[in-house]
Amino acid sequence: MLQNEDPHPFDMAIRLTGEGDRFLGQTTEHYANMIGPFGGIIAAVMLKAILGHADRQGDPVSFTVNYAAPISNGAFEIATRLVRNNRSTQHWSVELLQQGQICATATAVLATRRETWTATELPLPEIPNINEAVRVSIEGFPSWVKQYDIRLARGGLPLYITIENEEAYTSSITLQWVRDEPRRPMDYPSLTAICDSFFPRIYIRRDRIVPAGTVSFTVYYHADTDTLRTIGDREVIGEARANRFYNNYFDQTAELWTPEGMLIATSSQVCYYKE
Amino acid sequence: MLQNEDPHPFDMAIRLTGEGDRFLGQTTEHYANMIGPFGGIIAAVMLKAILGHADRQGDPVSFTVNYAAPISNGAFEIATRLVRNNRSTQHWSVELLQQGQICATATAVLATRRETWTATELPLPEIPNINEAVRVSIEGFPSWVKQYDIRLARGGLPLYITIENEEAYTSSITLQWVRDEPRRPMDYPSLTAICDSFFPRIYIRRDRIVPAGTVSFTVYYHADTDTLRTIGDREVIGEARANRFYNNYFDQTAELWTPEGMLIATSSQVCYYKE
Repeated sequence: MLQNEDPHPFDMAIRLTGEGDRFLGQTTEHYANMIGPFGGIIAAVMLKAILGHADRQGDPVSFTVNYAAPISNGAFEIATRLVRNNRSTQHWSVELLQQGQICATATAVLATRRETWTATELPLPEIPNINEAVRVSIEGFPSWVKQYDIRLARGGLPLYITIENEEAYTSSITLQWVRDEPRRPMDYPSLTAICDSFFPRIYIRRDRIVPAGTVSFTVYYHADTDTLRTIGDREVIGEARANRFYNNYFDQTAELWTPEGMLIATSSQVCYYKE
Repeated sequence: MLQNEDPHPFDMAIRLTGEGDRFLGQTTEHYANMIGPFGGIIAAVMLKAILGHADRQGDPVSFTVNYAAPISNGAFEIATRLVRNNRSTQHWSVELLQQGQICATATAVLATRRETWTATELPLPEIPNINEAVRVSIEGFPSWVKQYDIRLARGGLPLYITIENEEAYTSSITLQWVRDEPRRPMDYPSLTAICDSFFPRIYIRRDRIVPAGTVSFTVYYHADTDTLRTIGDREVIGEARANRFYNNYFDQTAELWTPEGMLIATSSQVCYYKE
């Protein structure tokens, strides 16, 4: 009965209609956050508008989304623009609008890579035993959390991990296994959303949920489509930590690794917080 | 004879004329790179177009520049757009054009901060003794290097630092003191340019200069104008390292600290390289 299978919730959430440079989409309940949709799904659908564009060439190297205004649940429009088309790179600009007002902007660099000298300098974190990691319960969390299987190996929400020493809240580091729930083969949009699946570091440092929201989010991609194919629908390893919390804004960085220990994405974001 | 003093080379390089949303600028020889101008000065002048705009409110929280095409030495045009004006934040979009073609795009988030709970999580590197650091000679380097006083305390170009163990080229970490040369009080544009004053990490890993260029550059600001005022024209501490080099693109991250050990900016960039 394959023909009756519903599409994966992620694919429903990033579904776009339209052509040329204008597309229409719709938020879904699956990826709802406390107010409006999960920022990661907004990033994913904005990236998808580029990757599905007739003029797209190459794979993403960098992608930055700025969240300019609250996004309401419901319909949205996406406008794409190929800013510059070079021999081996493309520069794209994207806007997400509701009622004619810009709610988010994004820029992407796509490139055709050639095989050359390659090295990973960032040390691989100790790969945690997935069976000993603590699965994040969905209870009390907004809907989007249900769309991920997150297993905390180190740090994370104090709610889940008992921290036994006094340094507890001087570090917001989290090491976790994460995948789409239900399982789904990884692609660039889902990789992008997973980079944003770490809880805001302020929750960890303050040991409670405080008003917080991403204002700018950047992903650098270190994987080609073949690498993503080898990951398939398996879990990846994610690590995140904050750098500085300063008067309403903090930044956090995160990396994703394959189960075999290959670095596939590095990411950073700056978030508003209210205390 | 103060009235006859030339402006600082940095101020000449970021000088803009015009009004509304269109400005004109001119590259200067001082900040020339191997081909075209230093990327950091382009970022600085694009930020300055926003900060000098009549509608500007607040200070920069995040700033991302995408270098879309080679920039020639000579005149350029900057177009600014206030994408969204919220109560305490502004979202800006900027384009730099030559001969009507877009060469670089940027987005910025500005915000009015309020005093609230603040913490720095990133460990402060051991503050190096400036008198024991090795000053980067300007010889053989493009012109922009002369506009900085860079003193390497750890890592850096193998040309300058003798690396005595076999791990030499498995790490691209650099710890340095850096300031404008001649001295100039720090502001957001100069802070931005200094974030880009670290040599491409590929030079260090390969122990030679190879074709390389930034495609996307992001700065998160953790300092208000009062903090910048306390720095004045003194040196700041900078640390940088790469994460992954993969088939023509690598990323590097960097942080800047005041001499007193306050984190003022975190930055990341992704660069093209050819090997």
